[in-house]
Amino acid sequence: MNIYEDLEKIRKKRPLIHHITNFVVMNDSANITLALGASPIMAHAKEELEDLINIADVLYINIGTLDSFWIDSMYLSLKYSEKYDKPVLLDPVGSGASKLRTQISLKLLESSSIKILKGNAGEILSLYGEKGKVKGVDSISEGNINIVEELALKYNKTVISTGKFDYVSDGKRKAIVKNGTEMFERITGSGCMLGSVISSFMAVNKDYFESSIEGLLTFEIAGELAERFSSGPGSFKANLMDAIYSINVNDYSLARVEYL
Amino acid sequence: MNIYEDLEKIRKKRPLIHHITNFVVMNDSANITLALGASPIMAHAKEELEDLINIADVLYINIGTLDSFWIDSMYLSLKYSEKYDKPVLLDPVGSGASKLRTQISLKLLESSSIKILKGNAGEILSLYGEKGKVKGVDSISEGNINIVEELALKYNKTVISTGKFDYVSDGKRKAIVKNGTEMFERITGSGCMLGSVISSFMAVNKDYFESSIEGLLTFEIAGELAERFSSGPGSFKANLMDAIYSINVNDYSLARVEYL
Amino acid sequence: MNIYEDLEKIRKKRPLIHHITNFVVMNDSANITLALGASPIMAHAKEELEDLINIADVLYINIGTLDSFWIDSMYLSLKYSEKYDKPVLLDPVGSGASKLRTQISLKLLESSSIKILKGNAGEILSLYGEKGKVKGVDSISEGNINIVEELALKYNKTVISTGKFDYVSDGKRKAIVKNGTEMFERITGSGCMLGSVISSFMAVNKDYFESSIEGLLTFEIAGELAERFSSGPGSFKANLMDAIYSINVNDYSLARVEYL
Repeated sequence: MNIYEDLEKIRKKRPLIHHITNFVVMNDSANITLALGASPIMAHAKEELEDLINIADVLYINIGTLDSFWIDSMYLSLKYSEKYDKPVLLDPVGSGASKLRTQISLKLLESSSIKILKGNAGEILSLYGEKGKVKGVDSISEGNINIVEELALKYNKTVISTGKFDYVSDGKRKAIVKNGTEMFERITGSGCMLGSVISSFMAVNKDYFESSIEGLLTFEIAGELAERFSSGPGSFKANLMDAIYSINVNDYSLARVEYL
Repeated sequence: MNIYEDLEKIRKKRPLIHHITNFVVMNDSANITLALGASPIMAHAKEELEDLINIADVLYINIGTLDSFWIDSMYLSLKYSEKYDKPVLLDPVGSGASKLRTQISLKLLESSSIKILKGNAGEILSLYGEKGKVKGVDSISEGNINIVEELALKYNKTVISTGKFDYVSDGKRKAIVKNGTEMFERITGSGCMLGSVISSFMAVNKDYFESSIEGLLTFEIAGELAERFSSGPGSFKANLMDAIYSINVNDYSLARVEYL
Repeated sequence: MNIYEDLEKIRKKRPLIHHITNFVVMNDSANITLALGASPIMAHAKEELEDLINIADVLYINIGTLDSFWIDSMYLSLKYSEKYDKPVLLDPVGSGASKLRTQISLKLLESSSIKILKGNAGEILSLYGEKGKVKGVDSISEGNINIVEELALKYNKTVISTGKFDYVSDGKRKAIVKNGTEMFERITGSGCMLGSVISSFMAVNKDYFESSIEGLLTFEIAGELAERFSSGPGSFKANLMDAIYSINVNDYSLARVEYL
């Protein structure tokens, strides 16, 4: 795994990341994808999903503001991702906070094209069968590497549980990513933007355990750099985009990953 | 009424503010809520409204980009806010600009769970029965404390009419808030963000005349602070988030409220 | 054509620009419209389109996140723009990337109230009947003044093909606008914000070949000014809003237009 090489591949190839995501973060997700060097597309119309997923490199599904109309698009997009062999990242935003979200997340998870499941600790816990406690869309539980590993084995996917520490497992390998900043909790869509960044790495590294870690490190190191020049969440968000845009090979020396 | 104590309560308890709001401002509304210290959730699916309103502290309805699908969600959310006794702030964006908006606003207003009605002068006027003149969603009329008081009595709610001066009445008490900056007119969603801020104060102060004033002062003083360091609306918006995030007890000495 | 005079007219009259646009950029489009001095409204409910288009000065349709529900609103809005004689700018985002987008764009184009068709080179090419190559929503082809001119004659509209250079023709006149910055490619919604700016000029200058050039120059010169103070796409977007807000008569000396 060479993160910076993979980042350079993103910047050179500009992979197309198809987003079916929520209304709150669409703008930020598109911007972080562009800042990183990839190319975002946001589209959900059933009539065009086949055309667009066919030309996309990765599909990113985020259920943040789901409704019946959009849920249909999510299912259909998975059908096409299977047909055209496109890897998918699923972000089960708010799973655990409502029965609908938990049910939809579990049903979406059945697709073999989903390669990475990424949520905060509460969301991941809710998909474990336990009664995950979710307060709104912000987790209040700490992650647990054993639950993550078990889920990875159960669903045959790479699972990421984000929080102060991020727990990653594909069932065989396990890692904890310890970068980040508390400012991520003070802006909306941190997790959603992270999803866009990891999706972009999925386009250039098909070892999804590795692309998970690459995305986590890139996003969270950029957050640490951004925070240095920020006096609050407003300037932090702008600085985060700038930092992702200009992150360089030396910045990765800040990486703090523990492989278990 | 102790604004700063109530702000500290928000920061400590992180109340959950359920937003059913418009596409234009969702991101900004979520961000201002987080910057203030509360916790936003944006959700409109009929299948999950009961679950989410049950765990929310306050519901904020904003009709900015209403359509038939979302209007149904608004009605349903009020049903659940009544069932679970959650206070609601209604923001009748653009009421007066189209018959649809005026009608929907009037119908939503029938719910007893709506505790605060907040709009610009034109929107408030349109709900008075007069022909309010609304230019787009930006008011061109000045507020009027007598109309505000009458509406408060008529609907048995606290009514806020925003503008250069903000007029507030619950039918018994009356106040004029004179803070603010013209930069608020140069960014979209000022009124919507204000709605999120007032909603957050509603979670910690059940005297809604007071929480109205607390929200107005906090938001508008933050705006005054933000403007000092801004060279236009782009930097102003970022600075506004930063200012809300770091507003402290001394900043409230800028408050200019007149109780009538 | 006196751009600065027309900008001053916008700032004075504050024309109302009705947007039917995509979820990704609504916030930025509203903000750039306000920063410029015009007044945005975003609304798509069929029940209110007649009321709102009646009071609007210009209609801007952008198909960036189209779906069946919104497509109906677009058609209906054109019906009312014809009824009330309101000029329309059409932005066929992603035309060429899916059959749906190409078909809808071609069908929308039949309306005589569309006065300006603006897209990137790939989108414009897709409406020429050639197989336009579109990568996501970002063009990879260079524009071509002859195709632009032919399309302008064919559809009887002013046609703009954006890119490194922007090609403009109304069938009789031809121009190339050479301003801009590469940072526009690093933020989402550059083209969409440009659409809002050109729409605003359409409200004050009914020679749409001229208002096209006025909008292009104003937006792109602001981008050049913004770039000077930016360290990445995050700060660039904020600076762009500030620059549009404060652009003055001298800044237009940066204009680089070639009339053919």
